[in-house]
Amino acid sequence: MPAAMTTASSRTPITVAQFGIGPIGAEIARLLFSKPWIHVVAAVDIDPEKIGKDIGDVIGLGRKTGVVVTRELDVKADVVCHSTGSRLRDVASQLKMLLARGSHVVSTCEELSFPLDAEIREELQQTARANNVAILGTGVNPGFVMDKLPLTITAVCQEVRSVEIIRIQNASTRREPLQRKVGASMTVDEFRAAVAAGKIKHMGLRESLMLVGNGLGVEFDSVTDEVIEPIVADREIVTQYLKVAPGQVAGVHQTIYGKGRIDVSLELRMYVGAEDVAADRVIVHGVPDIELEVKGGIHGDRATAAMVVNCIPRIMQARVGVLTMDDVGVSFR
Amino acid sequence: MPAAMTTASSRTPITVAQFGIGPIGAEIARLLFSKPWIHVVAAVDIDPEKIGKDIGDVIGLGRKTGVVVTRELDVKADVVCHSTGSRLRDVASQLKMLLARGSHVVSTCEELSFPLDAEIREELQQTARANNVAILGTGVNPGFVMDKLPLTITAVCQEVRSVEIIRIQNASTRREPLQRKVGASMTVDEFRAAVAAGKIKHMGLRESLMLVGNGLGVEFDSVTDEVIEPIVADREIVTQYLKVAPGQVAGVHQTIYGKGRIDVSLELRMYVGAEDVAADRVIVHGVPDIELEVKGGIHGDRATAAMVVNCIPRIMQARVGVLTMDDVGVSFR
Repeated sequence: MPAAMTTASSRTPITVAQFGIGPIGAEIARLLFSKPWIHVVAAVDIDPEKIGKDIGDVIGLGRKTGVVVTRELDVKADVVCHSTGSRLRDVASQLKMLLARGSHVVSTCEELSFPLDAEIREELQQTARANNVAILGTGVNPGFVMDKLPLTITAVCQEVRSVEIIRIQNASTRREPLQRKVGASMTVDEFRAAVAAGKIKHMGLRESLMLVGNGLGVEFDSVTDEVIEPIVADREIVTQYLKVAPGQVAGVHQTIYGKGRIDVSLELRMYVGAEDVAADRVIVHGVPDIELEVKGGIHGDRATAAMVVNCIPRIMQARVGVLTMDDVGVSFR
Repeated sequence: MPAAMTTASSRTPITVAQFGIGPIGAEIARLLFSKPWIHVVAAVDIDPEKIGKDIGDVIGLGRKTGVVVTRELDVKADVVCHSTGSRLRDVASQLKMLLARGSHVVSTCEELSFPLDAEIREELQQTARANNVAILGTGVNPGFVMDKLPLTITAVCQEVRSVEIIRIQNASTRREPLQRKVGASMTVDEFRAAVAAGKIKHMGLRESLMLVGNGLGVEFDSVTDEVIEPIVADREIVTQYLKVAPGQVAGVHQTIYGKGRIDVSLELRMYVGAEDVAADRVIVHGVPDIELEVKGGIHGDRATAAMVVNCIPRIMQARVGVLTMDDVGVSFR
């Protein structure tokens, strides 16, 4: 019987360790504890304030779990959910250590969604294969709305000339750090200085583009630099956390394009006051033309945690090595 | 390097045989010949009118291909595209023969999309595994819009309570046999008699429901019988092929529901005169709620051929055995 034809509920629980308990890691951990088919066996963080405490208290679960946060991973788990950083070079040694211990790894590291650093990718590949495990970078963006979902919808096309991927996210409903991170309430000059300093940038847009190109079987002739521009408020916008005056920055407009046999454009608008226009959209020019829309768009943080947890049963059944979201089927579990 | 990170174009062409050259098989074959990464090595049909002819002439390609239609498959191919029937028991012996010859099989057989006949499924499983090949049933419906696409979008959810899957297809833009098949221009009595005789029924709706349930990890407590009702015209509708008077049947409304930990409903409306409302829609009640729409809906026949061909590179990289669309990533190639 195909593995897919047994339900998760009929199996022994999958043992999972949470590695990294920042805001996203905590969201993942809360979700892990809600799944009857998962048995959380460890939780790891470097924060001395968290080490030694029950993870239920650390993540606000409202109950003890019996799992105490440790500085090092000292338990074997089938799968490790890794959430400690966005940059591959910052987390590569952690990832290799986890693979070497024989665990599959599902990570929110944005650069892992399509590892562009050939050297690190090869190291991960060798370590994963040597230990007969798989590693997957996922999340909602990168990992789904601007790569996996667009790729999936193109499957009905006989021909594809270009793909436009547009994500308009209303930052008003997101947490305060996110609103600050997109530049809301800055002046345009402050915004441009923050961009120049590398402080305003959605991570993973290039990885999404390359993941889409790879899935479509296209090697782009050229890929633009990412362009990061302010979206300026034309009215006062008030959120739970801040106020934006007309002329101030409401958020960020970030784009990247790949040109080739198939042109692919990614456009991300993330700003406060976008309630009426928020959506995720994929427009395929081909045979047939396709226009897909997710009304209101898919909320970032909660969906990233969902993606990670929903990928757990999938990575258990996938081939070993470095995977991308294009390699696996995925759904709620 | 992960297999996914080499592009199709960089590989030796995949050898493909087309098995069955009816309307869908011919559409698949035309698409196969447009792909530089595919080398068509054989074409098989039982029709004496086609046997011995160049397949280019049979499918209206406008050129000779050098591939002559034969009654039996006498060449080894990496992948066989199989399109001869909707019912698993009618085609099971063909499928087993193809697998036994060491070819992967991608088939439009609707009942193969989620094989409910345990005995046939097990036979296919054993034959596929013994020969180190995979077999996959696909198409646009079943195979994508009412199963793979809904499953995929649920991946962003932390919780799912119910899924509504609605496909409204405008039969006015489809070929004449399809318009006749949905009952367009029948009286209501004729329609009901045709339903009772098993002549009006979209194949694969139950398979789509079970594929969704399986992907979500749900065993339904109960599944309704499929309900097939006429959609009655409230105005005159004229297509290229027929005319429907008010009070006559414009098409079919077919539904099925699964009840369980997660409720899933599938609703298919396929009728002439649906131009203004045609769409594919997925509504997920969960955390978060999701509303996805493909505007105008995805056209049936062309998309089915696309799905088959786009699955070819995917089945080459998948695990062996009986696969469903939930087991593979998919995109245009």
